[in-house]
Amino acid sequence: MRLRQNKPWADDYIKENHHIIIDEPFVNKGKWKEAFGNDQPLHIEIGSGKGKFIQGMAEQFPEVSFVGMERVKAVIVMALKKVKEHELPNARLLHENANDVREMFEENEVDQIYLNFSDPWPKNRHEKRRLTYHTFLEQYQSILKPEGRLVMKTDNRHLFEYSLVSFSQFGCVLEEVTMDLHSLDDETNVMTEYEEKFSEQGYPIYRCVVRFPS
Amino acid sequence: MRLRQNKPWADDYIKENHHIIIDEPFVNKGKWKEAFGNDQPLHIEIGSGKGKFIQGMAEQFPEVSFVGMERVKAVIVMALKKVKEHELPNARLLHENANDVREMFEENEVDQIYLNFSDPWPKNRHEKRRLTYHTFLEQYQSILKPEGRLVMKTDNRHLFEYSLVSFSQFGCVLEEVTMDLHSLDDETNVMTEYEEKFSEQGYPIYRCVVRFPS
Repeated sequence: MRLRQNKPWADDYIKENHHIIIDEPFVNKGKWKEAFGNDQPLHIEIGSGKGKFIQGMAEQFPEVSFVGMERVKAVIVMALKKVKEHELPNARLLHENANDVREMFEENEVDQIYLNFSDPWPKNRHEKRRLTYHTFLEQYQSILKPEGRLVMKTDNRHLFEYSLVSFSQFGCVLEEVTMDLHSLDDETNVMTEYEEKFSEQGYPIYRCVVRFPS
Repeated sequence: MRLRQNKPWADDYIKENHHIIIDEPFVNKGKWKEAFGNDQPLHIEIGSGKGKFIQGMAEQFPEVSFVGMERVKAVIVMALKKVKEHELPNARLLHENANDVREMFEENEVDQIYLNFSDPWPKNRHEKRRLTYHTFLEQYQSILKPEGRLVMKTDNRHLFEYSLVSFSQFGCVLEEVTMDLHSLDDETNVMTEYEEKFSEQGYPIYRCVVRFPS
């Protein structure tokens, strides 16, 4: 998300909803099951944007706990509104600016990671910023349980090509690759805001599921 | 290639050119370097069709020995014509009906394998016939040198998606994935007959390069 509108009411709204949106990202490290008050599997989304995905997933899978991370305040408050209005006990949001998920999650604490429509950083000199660059994969491997999964969706062909190679070189195994997700009629697929927009315009959506080496 | 025209002159033409087209596929197993009379790396194409690829590759890379395999006689004679007319000492053809390349190549004898526009066998019940099904990958692994490569091109999205997963599950590492080969302006790319036709019609061509586990 690159939207940076000023929302003067955002700070107050975030403060009022500290049970949903956690403004101290490190406080639950290693204690997410306690934070949710149950023993459910933990799925996280890195870059949640306006929250349509995390809301839809939390509704569809009440037996899973979801944490959505987003660094842009003006955007995450919109995710907060969704989670609040839909009364989703299994969703939390992290307003985080950290570059390392290991600061927020303990080793082996996470069951699944979602990367949805991440910034493609198309220039070669920005490769290190892509969320599928190997330094990020090292972070994911650390917080994921053995054989944990990562599910990635994007409309960007170059990022998808790059990521498949990056995953493979890292030792991940591809469990699913689709280059036209919406042709699958996968009823469990929850569309993000971006996905809805690009898909309406006729662009294919790419998805892969990878298993991390243990 | 699914073309099966009758060419009455084919048998004689093949007999006359036994130095190029080898009608006893097993005769050179383990002795391909002797057959070529040099120590060059050995690249093979499985399903050479009318031979445009093998001809173009042999011209572009005289320091590599190429063997093209094709089971349809009416087609391989057209490849034979190309290799003969272009006087390519580093190309041979195999008119083979075998289902196992291990009968024609010794363990660790081959440096690189090409699969170009292989039959996609779209029905699930025909999965075992796809040339990237794991039983074929076992054959390729056997004849390839340690860390040998396979280069696959196709216009079929489903076969490509399937193959990426199949390679990965087998333990191969993806070194390159492109979903629009012709956008790369790769001047070393030699187009097959199919590739030329489909590409002209505006379809994207997919390519991947995979390294086999040693």
